[in-house]
Amino acid sequence: MPLAEHSISIRVRYPEVDGMGYLHHSRYLQYFEMGRVELLRHLGHRYADLEARGILFVVIKAEIRYKSPARYDEELRLTTRLVKATHVRFDHEYILSRETTILAEGSTSIACVDRVGQLQKIPDDLIPPSPPTR
Amino acid sequence: MPLAEHSISIRVRYPEVDGMGYLHHSRYLQYFEMGRVELLRHLGHRYADLEARGILFVVIKAEIRYKSPARYDEELRLTTRLVKATHVRFDHEYILSRETTILAEGSTSIACVDRVGQLQKIPDDLIPPSPPTR
Amino acid sequence: MPLAEHSISIRVRYPEVDGMGYLHHSRYLQYFEMGRVELLRHLGHRYADLEARGILFVVIKAEIRYKSPARYDEELRLTTRLVKATHVRFDHEYILSRETTILAEGSTSIACVDRVGQLQKIPDDLIPPSPPTR
Amino acid sequence: MPLAEHSISIRVRYPEVDGMGYLHHSRYLQYFEMGRVELLRHLGHRYADLEARGILFVVIKAEIRYKSPARYDEELRLTTRLVKATHVRFDHEYILSRETTILAEGSTSIACVDRVGQLQKIPDDLIPPSPPTR
Repeated sequence: MPLAEHSISIRVRYPEVDGMGYLHHSRYLQYFEMGRVELLRHLGHRYADLEARGILFVVIKAEIRYKSPARYDEELRLTTRLVKATHVRFDHEYILSRETTILAEGSTSIACVDRVGQLQKIPDDLIPPSPPTR
Repeated sequence: MPLAEHSISIRVRYPEVDGMGYLHHSRYLQYFEMGRVELLRHLGHRYADLEARGILFVVIKAEIRYKSPARYDEELRLTTRLVKATHVRFDHEYILSRETTILAEGSTSIACVDRVGQLQKIPDDLIPPSPPTR
Repeated sequence: MPLAEHSISIRVRYPEVDGMGYLHHSRYLQYFEMGRVELLRHLGHRYADLEARGILFVVIKAEIRYKSPARYDEELRLTTRLVKATHVRFDHEYILSRETTILAEGSTSIACVDRVGQLQKIPDDLIPPSPPTR
Repeated sequence: MPLAEHSISIRVRYPEVDGMGYLHHSRYLQYFEMGRVELLRHLGHRYADLEARGILFVVIKAEIRYKSPARYDEELRLTTRLVKATHVRFDHEYILSRETTILAEGSTSIACVDRVGQLQKIPDDLIPPSPPTR
């Protein structure tokens, strides 16, 4: 059960497709980043405001499994889930789909750094409460 | 022991860095792709020629571990290793470094498709001979 | 008086900003392209469908005047105007703004080509009727 | 007669080409930027060092005329000329070619700003001496 979840729609742009006409495989990480930003906004935080407070995030690990290509102008759906949140790391999972077809699945780990790139504790107000367990 | 290995140098371009001044984490996959292309060229094949023959490759899996950021205008070294080659899949591993510092490590699996994206057997002439074992 | 006009909103994505935190100046051409595609859609045509019919467009000229920077996560407004349409060329003009501030103005000329890049006549159904003059 | 001139070679990367297999038209501005950076380096300055001194440049105007497409993996030659240098603006011209074929010509004007984007005078040591006239 994710700590938080949010879905957005993304339309594939022309300069994002490659010579085969497919969304370039590097772009998925950019979509995942958009998913994280919008999940954060959904939780009441603007990433640009965090940056202004000296709270930045860097990706320390990413993994993508590509299942089916996406093409120019297609409207895709990206679901982003926060699956783990500690004071040193957030883990997210992603599902990119077109209607009922899953195009890719992925996961990332991000860590919090200050303006000069030093690791810092993730502020309390950014950590969603754990769902009740019993 | 890799089946094949090749290193290239890459200078970080300005539009590749993000608002933190770091090489954007999605760009590493583009660098890895450059590494594969140059490894292939080193083995005597031009990817553009393969495309003209209807032999294309798609990434089916990618994984990156980011260790230290890269910045604009830095000269990096990327070592690409072909670690597994079958008639359905090539697996590569990557090490991106700046002098003696490892910035990132990664791995990908690629599969061979035809012009309409259907999986096809990887042609024999693209598969390097296995190193002798004993 | 433009032959056709359409406005869209675009949110600046993180990998689109540079090390200064500004939308990279090359990205404006990508936004203009999105403006053209959406203007075309507004006129009842999907660019992907045109491509499938062998009707492609290439940019032959572009010009941009940058007035004020755009930053990450800002919501911008792009107005695209078709100002000239002949059987060999479409000329568009663009205004990119954030609320009441004009960030950039630009213009492009595009020409119609077939799949191998040869110039061809722009099909009649793509040319909007001229506005009445008197 | 340019105040300074420098040529570099650039190999077209796969994620830089679009669905037609052509170098995307927005990429030319990124190539021009690489040309300016390398011209500057040729004149003894590193752009990253200037940034560290609070000397940054923003593009205020750009113009490109596309003549012939570039494709993936082609080795191009970019010649960058500084054609005008004042204390408020540098004007450059560019020629992108493949062997003897000119692919594109362009021009840009850049202005000097400080870290918060305010216009500032271009430092004397960055302005090449005018060529002798008679």
